[in-house]
Amino acid sequence: MNGFEALNQQTLPQRLGANAVLRQRIGADVSRWTVREVGDGNLNLVFILDGETGSVIVKQALPYVRLVGESWPLPLKRSYFEYHALTREAERCPGMVPEVLHFDRQQAIIVMEFLTPHVILRRALIEGRQLPRIAGDLGLFVARTLFRGSDLSMDTRKRKEDLALFADNVELCDITENLVFSDPYFDAKLNHFTTPQLDGIVAELRADRDLKVEAQRLKHLFTANAETLLHGDLHTGSVMVTDTETRVIDPEFAFYGPMALDIGMLLSNFWMSYFSQRGHEESGSREEMRVYLLGVIVETWDTFRAEFSRLWRTERTGILYQRTLFEDQGDQIGAEQALQVVLHSLWTDMLGFAGIEMHRRILGLAHNADFETIGDLDLRARCETKALKLGRHLAVNRHRIQDMTEVNAFVVRLEQEDIQ
Amino acid sequence: MNGFEALNQQTLPQRLGANAVLRQRIGADVSRWTVREVGDGNLNLVFILDGETGSVIVKQALPYVRLVGESWPLPLKRSYFEYHALTREAERCPGMVPEVLHFDRQQAIIVMEFLTPHVILRRALIEGRQLPRIAGDLGLFVARTLFRGSDLSMDTRKRKEDLALFADNVELCDITENLVFSDPYFDAKLNHFTTPQLDGIVAELRADRDLKVEAQRLKHLFTANAETLLHGDLHTGSVMVTDTETRVIDPEFAFYGPMALDIGMLLSNFWMSYFSQRGHEESGSREEMRVYLLGVIVETWDTFRAEFSRLWRTERTGILYQRTLFEDQGDQIGAEQALQVVLHSLWTDMLGFAGIEMHRRILGLAHNADFETIGDLDLRARCETKALKLGRHLAVNRHRIQDMTEVNAFVVRLEQEDIQ
Repeated sequence: MNGFEALNQQTLPQRLGANAVLRQRIGADVSRWTVREVGDGNLNLVFILDGETGSVIVKQALPYVRLVGESWPLPLKRSYFEYHALTREAERCPGMVPEVLHFDRQQAIIVMEFLTPHVILRRALIEGRQLPRIAGDLGLFVARTLFRGSDLSMDTRKRKEDLALFADNVELCDITENLVFSDPYFDAKLNHFTTPQLDGIVAELRADRDLKVEAQRLKHLFTANAETLLHGDLHTGSVMVTDTETRVIDPEFAFYGPMALDIGMLLSNFWMSYFSQRGHEESGSREEMRVYLLGVIVETWDTFRAEFSRLWRTERTGILYQRTLFEDQGDQIGAEQALQVVLHSLWTDMLGFAGIEMHRRILGLAHNADFETIGDLDLRARCETKALKLGRHLAVNRHRIQDMTEVNAFVVRLEQEDIQ
Repeated sequence: MNGFEALNQQTLPQRLGANAVLRQRIGADVSRWTVREVGDGNLNLVFILDGETGSVIVKQALPYVRLVGESWPLPLKRSYFEYHALTREAERCPGMVPEVLHFDRQQAIIVMEFLTPHVILRRALIEGRQLPRIAGDLGLFVARTLFRGSDLSMDTRKRKEDLALFADNVELCDITENLVFSDPYFDAKLNHFTTPQLDGIVAELRADRDLKVEAQRLKHLFTANAETLLHGDLHTGSVMVTDTETRVIDPEFAFYGPMALDIGMLLSNFWMSYFSQRGHEESGSREEMRVYLLGVIVETWDTFRAEFSRLWRTERTGILYQRTLFEDQGDQIGAEQALQVVLHSLWTDMLGFAGIEMHRRILGLAHNADFETIGDLDLRARCETKALKLGRHLAVNRHRIQDMTEVNAFVVRLEQEDIQ
């Protein structure tokens, strides 16, 4: 480990106390620094460090998965990829990721801005909070980071250098490759799900040849289609919100992959939140929340598409679909036709990734609190079943689905299925 | 250049004379070594070095494009990529590439087996020679190298390391990105073509919006879809043949790209050879040669597909379409369905790359001797026009073309067009 040492509440102030940026930010009197460990990361150590004049987050990778322990080693370098991803995201979509104050590669430590009073978006949605900004902010974030990290915009030499850098993020890609695209579709060791309630549909899905082939086709896209720098894990647990701000955190899964992954994973988590609402109606109907969530999905996609199109028209400076072939020949319509082709392929793949994400969150290792916090297992399984069915529909029929109106109508029908 | 020095006939023996492998191969008496420069490379210096007991090829990259001169710099490291590509090709398809005897990275020198009495396949086809082995050998070569260099077969960690290594081959990718996918479709500086005979069709193609969009879509695939280690320049000028042997040379354009590129480029050059035959009928009809070439195309694709399918069934050890999901669940049919999906996408993209390759070889910078050696410019332009039309058809209609019988029927019709 080359001198690596895990931080703890006691050692943290002495180890970071000499850091000038930190002292300036939270106060130079280290004796007044206090440290709280935030327990909810699966992979890493996370501390809130308070000083006299401010607070910061100290995140440190461990050489293993925190939740599981040393039996599941995971290299420290994920911190290096997270740092580089945060830097690039900050450039490509300013104001949407926490500011990085300090990075120590050897100790795998990132010190960053403490977001307050932000909460994790997933928690807010479980509580039934309607966040007014998430659709617009996240639609822009995804469009800008995906477009500006691709050969549509970047100097291709820089993109290829960056591709090589992130190609080393093998272990985190491996997690996605196995846990997302394969494990849910056979009796893999790490799987767990609401049993016996889901036994029937699980057997059905695992016997579903079309679904398995599509899931692998999407895995093929995931591993081979190195279009842009992705966040790689953009679910509602990677977003922090207030009513007026949205921030995206935790990009340690960053790598060059297919554009549609981030947006597909994000929308998938909104659809899962939708289906989970029925499980959270102890204190009243969540019907408004469901309507809100469908609106969020429409607005996120519309914002994404509009911003992607705007960037296409104004920032298409890369080697792809170059202006010399279209606008410079007076052929604006040609550039618009090409945009439609690209957006159509994004749409199709987005639906596929969204579908697969639903399955792995219900059948694989890493579940969503949206469903997990539903105590009544019969009720939980009914919510999960709807999401599983939607996932199957999206993954298998993605080339035949017209638009979001169609998807959401299907979603509403599924939701009403067990009410009738 | 860090001590780099170009070889010449005089300095070569003294500079390589101490090399043990070489001395063993061609004889230790350096005073008996003779050197001939082979003048037909576009990019590099190539020498035949003869000794008392044997001969070798000495290939050295120059820090610029040999054909153009120092005004077009091109990094020496292309030699490094060629060396690595040769090594991997030799592993993945033994016996199909020249044996590498010595590599000097700093001097960008590869010493390799001298192939004799092999000739360049393109030359043989221009002369009207029917080579009995090329279809079978090249079909196998492409299937094996593409399959075994991908996540269908390799350990994905090794593939990602290798992807990072070859991602640095930026300058040679840049040549393809510009000269193949873009230049032919606008008035680019490096273009040249048979004028004024082709003026009409060139204007037509450059105004063809569907074609330009498809060409860019294929460029998008080229830059983003890092599926496997490609040869990257697999035309008939990169193949050496006798009646009993086939060897593939010159993989300095190697990089991780879309599987369909190599096979598409290769078949494209067979179709161009077909259309060029009319220009070489001074000493008699080439009708038999045309029939032979259509047979080669069918056999190459059939061999490719059969071998790819065989490897799918027997060597699918990578992370994609894994056996745990199909065969291990008794679902052989699922694996076959997935194979069809992958082959269909390969077919479609192959047609696209084949189409684009035809355009760039007639309208771009680097032309084919097949057409260039036709002295009668009107006749040459008639041959080229047919290839340009086929290229357009394949690129734009690739999703709607059923099989090789259909393509070749279209080819024959085009060929007969100006005879009627």
